[in-house]
Amino acid sequence: MGVLFEQALAEAAARAERRIVSALGDAQGPVADAMRYAVTGGKGLRSFLVFESARLHGVAADDAAAPAAAIEAMHSYSLVHDDLPCMDDDDLRRGQPTVHRKWDEATAVLAGDALQTLAFQLVAETPCPPEAACALIASLAQAAGVRGMVGGQAMDIAAETAAAPLSLAQITALQTGKTGALFEWAALAGPRMAGAQTRALQAYARDLGLAFQIADDILDIEGDAATVGKATGKDANAGKATFVSHLGLDGAKQRARDLVQSACDALSVYGAEGETLRQAAAFVIARNS
Amino acid sequence: MGVLFEQALAEAAARAERRIVSALGDAQGPVADAMRYAVTGGKGLRSFLVFESARLHGVAADDAAAPAAAIEAMHSYSLVHDDLPCMDDDDLRRGQPTVHRKWDEATAVLAGDALQTLAFQLVAETPCPPEAACALIASLAQAAGVRGMVGGQAMDIAAETAAAPLSLAQITALQTGKTGALFEWAALAGPRMAGAQTRALQAYARDLGLAFQIADDILDIEGDAATVGKATGKDANAGKATFVSHLGLDGAKQRARDLVQSACDALSVYGAEGETLRQAAAFVIARNS
Repeated sequence: MGVLFEQALAEAAARAERRIVSALGDAQGPVADAMRYAVTGGKGLRSFLVFESARLHGVAADDAAAPAAAIEAMHSYSLVHDDLPCMDDDDLRRGQPTVHRKWDEATAVLAGDALQTLAFQLVAETPCPPEAACALIASLAQAAGVRGMVGGQAMDIAAETAAAPLSLAQITALQTGKTGALFEWAALAGPRMAGAQTRALQAYARDLGLAFQIADDILDIEGDAATVGKATGKDANAGKATFVSHLGLDGAKQRARDLVQSACDALSVYGAEGETLRQAAAFVIARNS
Repeated sequence: MGVLFEQALAEAAARAERRIVSALGDAQGPVADAMRYAVTGGKGLRSFLVFESARLHGVAADDAAAPAAAIEAMHSYSLVHDDLPCMDDDDLRRGQPTVHRKWDEATAVLAGDALQTLAFQLVAETPCPPEAACALIASLAQAAGVRGMVGGQAMDIAAETAAAPLSLAQITALQTGKTGALFEWAALAGPRMAGAQTRALQAYARDLGLAFQIADDILDIEGDAATVGKATGKDANAGKATFVSHLGLDGAKQRARDLVQSACDALSVYGAEGETLRQAAAFVIARNS
């Protein structure tokens, strides 16, 4: 887990958080406080992908701060709502009480709502040609909507009461929406800002997203709540179909390694410049939280 | 309540709904179904304002369909979330069961989330110069966010447990965010698409939004649930400060009439072309639902 990547990740997370806090300005009250709280302490992987894809396409880090902040705001909104009692009913997130536990459900609903709005506000503030900004916004809406992230979450909720457990193909489709769509948007933000076409980063992001989710399933079994920062063992206790329940623990680990290899192969077009993204792929399956 | 207006309102509502349904395409499952359900049966006042402001600034109705649909999607999302048990806990909306009553809370949270996303997707699809599209998107994010609609709703929730009832100035600030911000965005969508500056429609929309809310407070007292399409008498039962509790029933009616007059005065620059908007202002305080 190279030094290049560790530095870049920490810097990306800090930059994105600063940009969100600055956009919120002096907004007061529990909802604004809950928004600041909800964007704190994340790994910053999605904002890192925005900054790296921007760098690879000649876009300055300062210009990438707005879309990087946007994707973290969007991700944070989804976590706040997913943690609600009517959804996954989680008490712990990133090692801290979830928003509805620290405040209340109404505040969590509103803070999540406003974080989604803020995500679009931030993308609209991206300093790039208006055509590129419109493309960023339209693609973010696709990634977050009922055919993307929310669609994946809806499949996840529906699976809980379904007669039969999900097949591997269904789990893959679910996770491609729930996690993969935002990863993909983040990894394509740089080329979109530069008006460039690239299949390399799209392929990379797809494999990375799936590897990330498989690693999450493994952490749910092998990790402990204190380190992971959220409840573990939930899927197995609920008898939920996951990559691990289908492939076994070893099979899942092998699949994740294969995906990381395939993600790295997709970066060949960037040569040595792609090294930080390769380290990121290795991190995704080596992390313990 | 002139014929011009009645026709224009019905047409606007139908056009906006068609555009939303078309954007949802063949999306399946409870969340997509709940989204279609939630955008059905509204008055269409916000989409009407988009179409009218577009017409007054030389923008074709076909081109205004996307932002008109966007503002109805945004409004519908706010209703679905406001009706949740942890918020206003309403069973009835537009004369039908609320989304969380017809489906469940998780579906209502996700359908609201995806309707907000859809709103931004639709605005991004507006056929106008990219600069204008970016301005539409940025202003919609401002109107919907923690300093706009969500901010107003947060003040409303906070007021329920506050030590002292809200002052008239505080209620006005609350409603300017909760209801006024989307009205204003809708009334400025046309000039924004045309790249025009106008204070007339902004002044009109502000007065219209407040008049609308005062009429809502009056309906909460004078209306019956069957006609209004949602529970009535809630504010008085909860001892909530409203325009009526501050101004009295007659005072509130007079204030609403004054606001409608002032809204109509602001339209003088449009001459006879502003007639439909004047009829809309009269409708806002004459409606019984």
